[in-house]
Amino acid sequence: MAERSEALQRFYSIIPAGGIGSRLWPLSRADAPKFLHDLTGSGTTLLRGTWDRLVPLAGDQRIMVVTGRAHRAAVEEQLPELQDANIVLESEPKDSSAAIGLAAAILVRREPDVIVGSFAADHVISDVRSFRRAVEQAVAVADGGYIATIGITPTEPAIGFGYIHCGEALAIPGAPKAMRVESFVEKPDLKTAQRYVEGGDHLWNAGMFIARADVLLTQMRESQPELVAGLEELAAVWDDAKKRGPAVDRIWPGLTKIAIDYSVAEPAARSGKLAVIPGSFDWDDVGDFAAIAKLHAGGRKNDLAILGENARVLADASSGVVISQTKRIISLIGVRDIVVVDTEDALLVTTSANAQRVKSVVDALKLSGRSEVL
Amino acid sequence: MAERSEALQRFYSIIPAGGIGSRLWPLSRADAPKFLHDLTGSGTTLLRGTWDRLVPLAGDQRIMVVTGRAHRAAVEEQLPELQDANIVLESEPKDSSAAIGLAAAILVRREPDVIVGSFAADHVISDVRSFRRAVEQAVAVADGGYIATIGITPTEPAIGFGYIHCGEALAIPGAPKAMRVESFVEKPDLKTAQRYVEGGDHLWNAGMFIARADVLLTQMRESQPELVAGLEELAAVWDDAKKRGPAVDRIWPGLTKIAIDYSVAEPAARSGKLAVIPGSFDWDDVGDFAAIAKLHAGGRKNDLAILGENARVLADASSGVVISQTKRIISLIGVRDIVVVDTEDALLVTTSANAQRVKSVVDALKLSGRSEVL
Repeated sequence: MAERSEALQRFYSIIPAGGIGSRLWPLSRADAPKFLHDLTGSGTTLLRGTWDRLVPLAGDQRIMVVTGRAHRAAVEEQLPELQDANIVLESEPKDSSAAIGLAAAILVRREPDVIVGSFAADHVISDVRSFRRAVEQAVAVADGGYIATIGITPTEPAIGFGYIHCGEALAIPGAPKAMRVESFVEKPDLKTAQRYVEGGDHLWNAGMFIARADVLLTQMRESQPELVAGLEELAAVWDDAKKRGPAVDRIWPGLTKIAIDYSVAEPAARSGKLAVIPGSFDWDDVGDFAAIAKLHAGGRKNDLAILGENARVLADASSGVVISQTKRIISLIGVRDIVVVDTEDALLVTTSANAQRVKSVVDALKLSGRSEVL
Repeated sequence: MAERSEALQRFYSIIPAGGIGSRLWPLSRADAPKFLHDLTGSGTTLLRGTWDRLVPLAGDQRIMVVTGRAHRAAVEEQLPELQDANIVLESEPKDSSAAIGLAAAILVRREPDVIVGSFAADHVISDVRSFRRAVEQAVAVADGGYIATIGITPTEPAIGFGYIHCGEALAIPGAPKAMRVESFVEKPDLKTAQRYVEGGDHLWNAGMFIARADVLLTQMRESQPELVAGLEELAAVWDDAKKRGPAVDRIWPGLTKIAIDYSVAEPAARSGKLAVIPGSFDWDDVGDFAAIAKLHAGGRKNDLAILGENARVLADASSGVVISQTKRIISLIGVRDIVVVDTEDALLVTTSANAQRVKSVVDALKLSGRSEVL
């Protein structure tokens, strides 16, 4: 491995491990969120996979995890190397601006010139070397005062992701591929997505943001001054064990819930301060069961993916995905593109084409007062 | 109710309660065969439904049940009125000729002029009055020395049933609708079935046989002399508690396994001794999950039938049938004509169109040594 650049030595990774992953119910639950599952069949959870991917970049002493209090034990079990100073516990979910912003505010107090990079705990990337090269360029861009993101070169006209519209190349040392971001585009329709893929100047928004912590907070302060004031108040007492708890109880509940895309990325793009490094590695946010099926089928349409340590599946003329958390015999006969998720207290049967609608079941269960299975 | 005819006073019902119903796995099992399930949502098992349908014809003192030793307790729980003298226990399954033949042989020793009628324990008929009128005519036919069957007037070109080809009308007092049977036809293809339904001289074979016990045994003896010899040897000692057990152990294992259709009905038809009474009542053998779905949908194509006392189903844009034996939440999204059977140790997901293939799963489980779930 080449020597680490000066900028990379100031790099600190942040892993926000928050979302439940409602579209993966009943696999993902409030008490067993998506990042604590092995969705790739690799034998490790998505969180552990994310950690292992970041260690070569930041070292295991420089990765901070922001998660819910309820998940502390599970996270620590997955990441025995995680230091106490590197775990930030939320008393309730407050979306990504608060999670990443708090981590940045804590880190910038400890190291004023720190460069932070935020990477979701529940995404899948298998080409780790290519990922690393992209992050190294993003760090160089961040060192130049930009907010950087990594956009994924699309391999198909996906309609489940947002897109990044790339502008002119930026001449930044150590980041030959950096471009200015013109704008972010919400999930498009198929026709628009096809145009994006053919045009070649759109990348998938993978939600990775790399910036000097002070630059990130300054940008966030422009659109969310109260939120950042609250985060800085918290950060000021964070490393004081006596004061931290009362401050969290007082400040955290009142913080604005807003995604970092809206508080930082889009405003930065509008003012020309957002840069993007194209990443040509495989990437998936594994947002729904169709994504899991695709991940495992490797493009083969008639495959049946089977996940679950003790899965006992007997399938005839069937394709799709079976996720088993029980020891029951699961028999499939003549069902195509099926999704079967078998857990102790809940069963889901749907199809890949309906995978996005799973969230509506979760909503219905909430409304009907059956949230014990959520 | 009209006074019972002299012949009807000699009538005795036999309920062979044998088959597991493999095409209804994992609902039906070796230890929970089809006849012990409530497949109609009526709140009673198919066996109890059969019993209740026969009581008005034979009285509850004149119904004999032939079942496996393993099912004795369950059968007696379902039928508390069942007398000890009216339960015949098989040490192992030997198909319908042995079951019905033994019952007939026992009964004819007790009452030489008894008329027996055999009715499967696991069929569904809701128009009990129409059924009763058909049996009364069949009893009159049987009293005249014929072997009688009741054929169901087809309501659609079903390919899952055998058919009875009807011949000329018979002039039998008390049985104005009786016709001679020309022949039996195995399950036809759709085109042939359509021709049968349009032609009007074919009925569904519902496997109901009514005859004087001595006539039945004489007919069976013609094709299966050794089997009948064994059955009569058993019958001779049946009512002697000391001799019965050793005789069963000695004779039963060696008896020929053959359906009564082949040992009695077809030979009788060939020699012109089989008569049929057309029954225009609803009837179904509920042979597979498609039949259950149809039974509950009442012809409405988009219905989702839900069976199971504690079923908790949340369905969106789905149709078919869900059978739940657990308390799990079952969610269906966008699956049409689906069949989901959810039991403690096995789950089946298929479609109505594939319902007939369920037996192949059972065969595969046997072959793979997983018969603990069969």
